[in-house]
Amino acid sequence: MDRNPLLRESDLAFLLRDVFEVGRLCQLERFSHLDLETFELYIEAARTLARSRLYPLYREMDQAPPRFDGARVTTHPKMAECYDQLSQLGVLSATRPEAVNGASLPQTIATVANLYLMAANAGAAGFPLLTAGAAHLVEAFGDDETRALFMRPMYDGEWTGTMALTEPHAGSSLAEISTRATARSDGRYNLRGSKIFISGGDHDLKPNIVHMTLGRIDGAPPGIKGVSLFAVPRLRPEGDKLAPNDVHTTQLIHKIGWKALPSVALNYGEDDDCVGWLIGEPGSGLIYMFQMMNEARLMVGANGVATASAAYFAALEYAETRRQGRALADPDATAAATIIEHPDVRRMLLRQKAIVEGGTALLVQTGLYADHAAAAPVEQRPRAAGILDVLTPVAKSFPAEWGYEANSLALQIFGGYGYTTEYMPEAWLRDQRLNSIHEGTTGIQGLELLGRKVVARDGEALRALLEDIHADIERARDRERLHDHAEALARVCERLAAATARVAGRGASGDVVGMLGHSDNYLRSTCVILVAWMWLKMAAAATLHEPSDFSRGKLAACDYWFREELPRATTWLANCETAAPSFARLSPKSL
Amino acid sequence: MDRNPLLRESDLAFLLRDVFEVGRLCQLERFSHLDLETFELYIEAARTLARSRLYPLYREMDQAPPRFDGARVTTHPKMAECYDQLSQLGVLSATRPEAVNGASLPQTIATVANLYLMAANAGAAGFPLLTAGAAHLVEAFGDDETRALFMRPMYDGEWTGTMALTEPHAGSSLAEISTRATARSDGRYNLRGSKIFISGGDHDLKPNIVHMTLGRIDGAPPGIKGVSLFAVPRLRPEGDKLAPNDVHTTQLIHKIGWKALPSVALNYGEDDDCVGWLIGEPGSGLIYMFQMMNEARLMVGANGVATASAAYFAALEYAETRRQGRALADPDATAAATIIEHPDVRRMLLRQKAIVEGGTALLVQTGLYADHAAAAPVEQRPRAAGILDVLTPVAKSFPAEWGYEANSLALQIFGGYGYTTEYMPEAWLRDQRLNSIHEGTTGIQGLELLGRKVVARDGEALRALLEDIHADIERARDRERLHDHAEALARVCERLAAATARVAGRGASGDVVGMLGHSDNYLRSTCVILVAWMWLKMAAAATLHEPSDFSRGKLAACDYWFREELPRATTWLANCETAAPSFARLSPKSL
Repeated sequence: MDRNPLLRESDLAFLLRDVFEVGRLCQLERFSHLDLETFELYIEAARTLARSRLYPLYREMDQAPPRFDGARVTTHPKMAECYDQLSQLGVLSATRPEAVNGASLPQTIATVANLYLMAANAGAAGFPLLTAGAAHLVEAFGDDETRALFMRPMYDGEWTGTMALTEPHAGSSLAEISTRATARSDGRYNLRGSKIFISGGDHDLKPNIVHMTLGRIDGAPPGIKGVSLFAVPRLRPEGDKLAPNDVHTTQLIHKIGWKALPSVALNYGEDDDCVGWLIGEPGSGLIYMFQMMNEARLMVGANGVATASAAYFAALEYAETRRQGRALADPDATAAATIIEHPDVRRMLLRQKAIVEGGTALLVQTGLYADHAAAAPVEQRPRAAGILDVLTPVAKSFPAEWGYEANSLALQIFGGYGYTTEYMPEAWLRDQRLNSIHEGTTGIQGLELLGRKVVARDGEALRALLEDIHADIERARDRERLHDHAEALARVCERLAAATARVAGRGASGDVVGMLGHSDNYLRSTCVILVAWMWLKMAAAATLHEPSDFSRGKLAACDYWFREELPRATTWLANCETAAPSFARLSPKSL
Repeated sequence: MDRNPLLRESDLAFLLRDVFEVGRLCQLERFSHLDLETFELYIEAARTLARSRLYPLYREMDQAPPRFDGARVTTHPKMAECYDQLSQLGVLSATRPEAVNGASLPQTIATVANLYLMAANAGAAGFPLLTAGAAHLVEAFGDDETRALFMRPMYDGEWTGTMALTEPHAGSSLAEISTRATARSDGRYNLRGSKIFISGGDHDLKPNIVHMTLGRIDGAPPGIKGVSLFAVPRLRPEGDKLAPNDVHTTQLIHKIGWKALPSVALNYGEDDDCVGWLIGEPGSGLIYMFQMMNEARLMVGANGVATASAAYFAALEYAETRRQGRALADPDATAAATIIEHPDVRRMLLRQKAIVEGGTALLVQTGLYADHAAAAPVEQRPRAAGILDVLTPVAKSFPAEWGYEANSLALQIFGGYGYTTEYMPEAWLRDQRLNSIHEGTTGIQGLELLGRKVVARDGEALRALLEDIHADIERARDRERLHDHAEALARVCERLAAATARVAGRGASGDVVGMLGHSDNYLRSTCVILVAWMWLKMAAAATLHEPSDFSRGKLAACDYWFREELPRATTWLANCETAAPSFARLSPKSL
């Protein structure tokens, strides 16, 4: 277990150098002062912290979760030190500009570094990553006062931040937010309401916590247009001092995973003395919050990959050392075989590899679009931003859904031992289970993808994405080893485009259920297709290597994906197109 | 939650009366003194105990698992009373003949009753079901002395029993068992060795525990032919007294589920004073144990269905009452919709329904073959026994694998709440996770099915099974509503037969890896095909009903299965036939 690499250097070097040539990011002006070596140094620092510090603390943090005494939450005694180490690494502002003491690193590189941190200890990494998102919200939409008051201490590692969206009656439905904000004479607002599932919502790491809170100003219209964003600190700055701000923890949620990170319910304004600072314009809260949510969704995707990766390497090590039974090819051997000799164990490992490395590639690809959306020449940005919009629900959901399967396979390889708390796979399986729920369930992601992202601007972004996929198909088509896969991917991309047009047409004619009833099928199709694209890219890069165990592994995982997963897209897309009179119209009484 | 039906009466009545007409079992001489009403009375008694007693105790047993003080294991304080209630219900000997105070009920009926008990509280139900299996072993293979000594007190509810197969170094590989048995002058044996993962291996319910133990008599040949079966009681009968028998609990395994039922490691003969009674012939232990293991495998399948069923009904109730968001069809409604109005929630519920009811039908079907194998006119028994052999790994693995998906979907429907210990789905998900591991992992089941069951006697049993499936296809083919499904099932059955012949041919020519490398694909194909058969049968019965919510639900689930799951069999069977140079031949260094 001590030897768990979390992610393997050789796989990442292959991705960053051979497959995606991320050094080319330095051709963009924003990153022109950086080079591939700088990128790798940051990743290396994250790797070291992850392996030497965060991972060894994982199990004790899992087994001694935060406690709530009725007023405050106490975290694991070593969590505060971890937070400072993460802060010193630069996690809080890795991608932010120097103006806010950031390192201006590309999103792509920050994501890869975060993979190590999350693979080592998802809960511990959650604190600074949430804080970074909260600070970025104030940076992007706040004014000088709120930046000085709230952004600065969060980026500096002195305070932490949360995103406070969910309310008990309205889990996924942000339009129904009912936290009230009443204007005060000093330009600030008095807040009253309740929030639930607030990660990092209370703790003893730092003196203050800034809750980026969605609320509704008195008289605001119903629905999402009435939602505004407020910075609501636990302690409010009054001159040089911090005074209690009437935000109270009412409950510690007993989560089944992510145990290092407390999730709480909060009450605002029980004594009518909770002050919030409006961020940006009234009624634009949800638009602003989408910045943080989209960042958080990619973070969830990264967590899904990371959690599957740590478990994959644990399973691989176990399979290489545990002896049991005889190999099929050598039934009369005197000694038992290592279980990795059994084909079905290799199948389970190959599936995990295909999911983990396919997911990692998808995150890197998504990061590159994010970097181009933010830093490419201005005229190129909208195209990249559109593709990023399409990729976000996929990069969130693929790792969550397939990663959960990968984690379950890792447990399976440990057999009866995997079903015990003496080994790690059960813990990673619990951690992974959250990823299809938080930051928008998989169901929500499907509606986002099909109902918004691929149909926006008459499908422009999906067309652009398909162009990029086709460029890779063209490059692979003439290579004998990849020809069939390239053709298969081309065919299924055509099906995707046709199915999209068909269901969008239904929506345009007013049949919303006919359009969106099978949005989950649509999302899953897109997941397996985009990961097939990633595997085609990786296989193409691998064929440029001398044949080796390494390159054969990449090709085997690619073959596996095309043989076993990609065919499912055809079934699912057919459902989207033809299965209108199905569960979408089924009476609940028939269930 | 209180209203959880665990299984729904109307669904069971439909299955038992309409689909399978289980009353016809009474035409067999063994059951001729019984009738459908008797069957239903027994099921009703199990249902009452399950709902009124076992289910209300589930969570407290889950949260206060057994404790180990270094010598003995203490179970939940209410477990002992539960055991007596289960014993009084008749679980211990429901299917056994009157000669041993049994009720002579068909296996089919006992299975359905067990579904209720396991849906209510898997761990609690585990104690008597394991004891029943242990007692049945002594009944079947013991002599008068061991029957009197061990079988009788187990059937009578005075002692409990276990199956003690697994050893620390040889989890799934029973040929490597190394527990030693040395003949004593009194005809008994001294045992020395270690066993692990022994469910019910220690507890405080009853004074004595009989461990049905696999060991190797000194001088026995290596491999499975050297394995013998012993009854090894915790306390050994000496005249009228019970004396300590040198079997010691060394460890309580910290399982992640099934918390009511302790799983322990045992040491035999630390002081060289552990006496075992040989059951049957030396060297036949594994053959005998297969009786118990096959019973246990069907029990695991039943547990998989039961655990998915309890979660399905919890999710259904939650979806009917939880309000959130607006329905797609009515986006401007003033009140939030119940989440069951959202198509994707209905998809998740329909998938659960299809798995739960499909799995229940598969278990009933398997029970019927078991009953015919045991009680049909003698000349008909081998055919039924052969089909039962083929069905067993499927009836074990389908509920374990697909049931786990169903349980995960149930948790998903609860959203963030599902990720907490305040709601039940997380507990059922933990329970379900064991079912693909114990009593032979899914990987082992695949090897059993393809490597043994379908190729035995030149494929006779598979041909018989396909005949029975074709009889149902013929009946459905002319019904317009079912025609396409019947055709699809016929086509995929042909593929199954062809793929079986192809891979068996490889095995016959010595290419064992080419035959068995894709045994998991083969098992999964068989799972979706047999459940498609079940859904065709259920749909056929439903079309005889007046159209109603009930019958439309059955037809919708059938359509769903044929549209979404059955197509996967074609991909998987193609892998079995063509993908020989795949992971089965992949170097472990490429992983």
